[in-house]
Amino acid sequence: MPRGRIAQRLRLAPGQRVRLRDAQAAERLGWDEDEAKRALDANRERLEQLQYKMYADGRFGLIVLLQAIDAGGKDGTIRHVVSAFNPGGVQVTSFKAPSPEEARHDYLWRVEARIPPRGMVGVLNRSHYEEVMAARVRRLVPRGTWEARYAHINAYERYLTDNRLRLVKLFLQISKKEQKRRFEARVRERHKQWKFTPSDIADRAQWGRYHRAFEDALCHCGSAWAPWYLIPADHKWFRNFAVSQILREELEALPLRFPRPEYDPRKIRIPD
Amino acid sequence: MPRGRIAQRLRLAPGQRVRLRDAQAAERLGWDEDEAKRALDANRERLEQLQYKMYADGRFGLIVLLQAIDAGGKDGTIRHVVSAFNPGGVQVTSFKAPSPEEARHDYLWRVEARIPPRGMVGVLNRSHYEEVMAARVRRLVPRGTWEARYAHINAYERYLTDNRLRLVKLFLQISKKEQKRRFEARVRERHKQWKFTPSDIADRAQWGRYHRAFEDALCHCGSAWAPWYLIPADHKWFRNFAVSQILREELEALPLRFPRPEYDPRKIRIPD
Repeated sequence: MPRGRIAQRLRLAPGQRVRLRDAQAAERLGWDEDEAKRALDANRERLEQLQYKMYADGRFGLIVLLQAIDAGGKDGTIRHVVSAFNPGGVQVTSFKAPSPEEARHDYLWRVEARIPPRGMVGVLNRSHYEEVMAARVRRLVPRGTWEARYAHINAYERYLTDNRLRLVKLFLQISKKEQKRRFEARVRERHKQWKFTPSDIADRAQWGRYHRAFEDALCHCGSAWAPWYLIPADHKWFRNFAVSQILREELEALPLRFPRPEYDPRKIRIPD
Repeated sequence: MPRGRIAQRLRLAPGQRVRLRDAQAAERLGWDEDEAKRALDANRERLEQLQYKMYADGRFGLIVLLQAIDAGGKDGTIRHVVSAFNPGGVQVTSFKAPSPEEARHDYLWRVEARIPPRGMVGVLNRSHYEEVMAARVRRLVPRGTWEARYAHINAYERYLTDNRLRLVKLFLQISKKEQKRRFEARVRERHKQWKFTPSDIADRAQWGRYHRAFEDALCHCGSAWAPWYLIPADHKWFRNFAVSQILREELEALPLRFPRPEYDPRKIRIPD
């Protein structure tokens, strides 16, 4: 199996319909753990350089949107990949169930409030996609309401793109077996117990309905301007490497440059 | 010279008046570069563990406040030390000259808006101290106005402390010679030129007045509840090590614990 072109192979085509099968979640595209870890290290260095240039440039921003089922690895991806960036240029937002104030607003309000200025990396840990996933599976709104949201989301993401904010959407896919292993570790290990609540079991029981909702969102909101990437995430090392590779390629595709100084460097003398 | 107790030796006593002399800025307290770098690496690992526990605990927050003259190393400290934390639990704010909207507000408004929830690390890159430094040196307000601010600041910092937000204030001290070297590097190196503006030379000409203002702020706002640390910062490796050591000791002094789960772990079975 060819090992190259990771980002291209994981990117979904606009409107592409995928079936989320558990077997895909352990995919590694021919990579082994050691080489993936070395590649991750190299990508981390490069990501910091690219971010520095994007910050200096100031014309473009990067928004990384993370979605996954519980224990899918969103936090771990932030810890192992997003940590490569200078924290002064990153803004991470973890969206929870809407607060009473958030719920009184239109549903994109809290997202837009957390879009950083250009020059920065914004990370959305969960996002407006909960409005067509959790809201649908838990039947918080009728079908007509969540169906209308695909068009809102596409228009909003187009707007961000037109504003030179590159939106990269990552769906981390784990298998049902792997979720069980991770839940069991959370329940067993003292320092992880706070991450688990018994209601996680109720959500797990909706596995099929969640994945049907994910499949629809990947298809209806897989646009030419804001692609979805489907990341096999049972192997944490592969997930980290793949995400680092995608972010690297996405940043390398931006026409970044250091701004010309507004002064003539040859004429500057710093006095003692 | 004894090499231990770094944090204790750099912490100013409440109300302590110091004279900022250039010779202090190259201090290294007996450490050499290699051992300081190894200690930094160890501290970085420990910082991430402590942050994880503080996040899980949720009862305490840490606010790291950075002040320095231009090119004093605030950004570098964030890049090399704050980057040890999981970015999902950090919020860095770089304060610039107040925007028109900010300037219409009371001067603590924009600071308070950027104090993160408990469980998080907040980093203030510049802060309300500009209101008794830049505002004073540039004569933006009369003496009576900035003099009254020391009491506001002490009361505000006391309030944060009473709310279980530990405030750690770091003044990075460089020598005038070192600032010149760093300015020259910025002007000379293409990828750093954007960080320099000719107005930096005008501020440099006010070196003495800025340092008098810093000395007053360190003295008047060096409180028992929110201490100032005076960091010799000519050697970047020493600065990074010293800051990591201070943050480590500050976090270790918090009575952090993992919360008890609201369920009985022995009774949880994850269904297939």
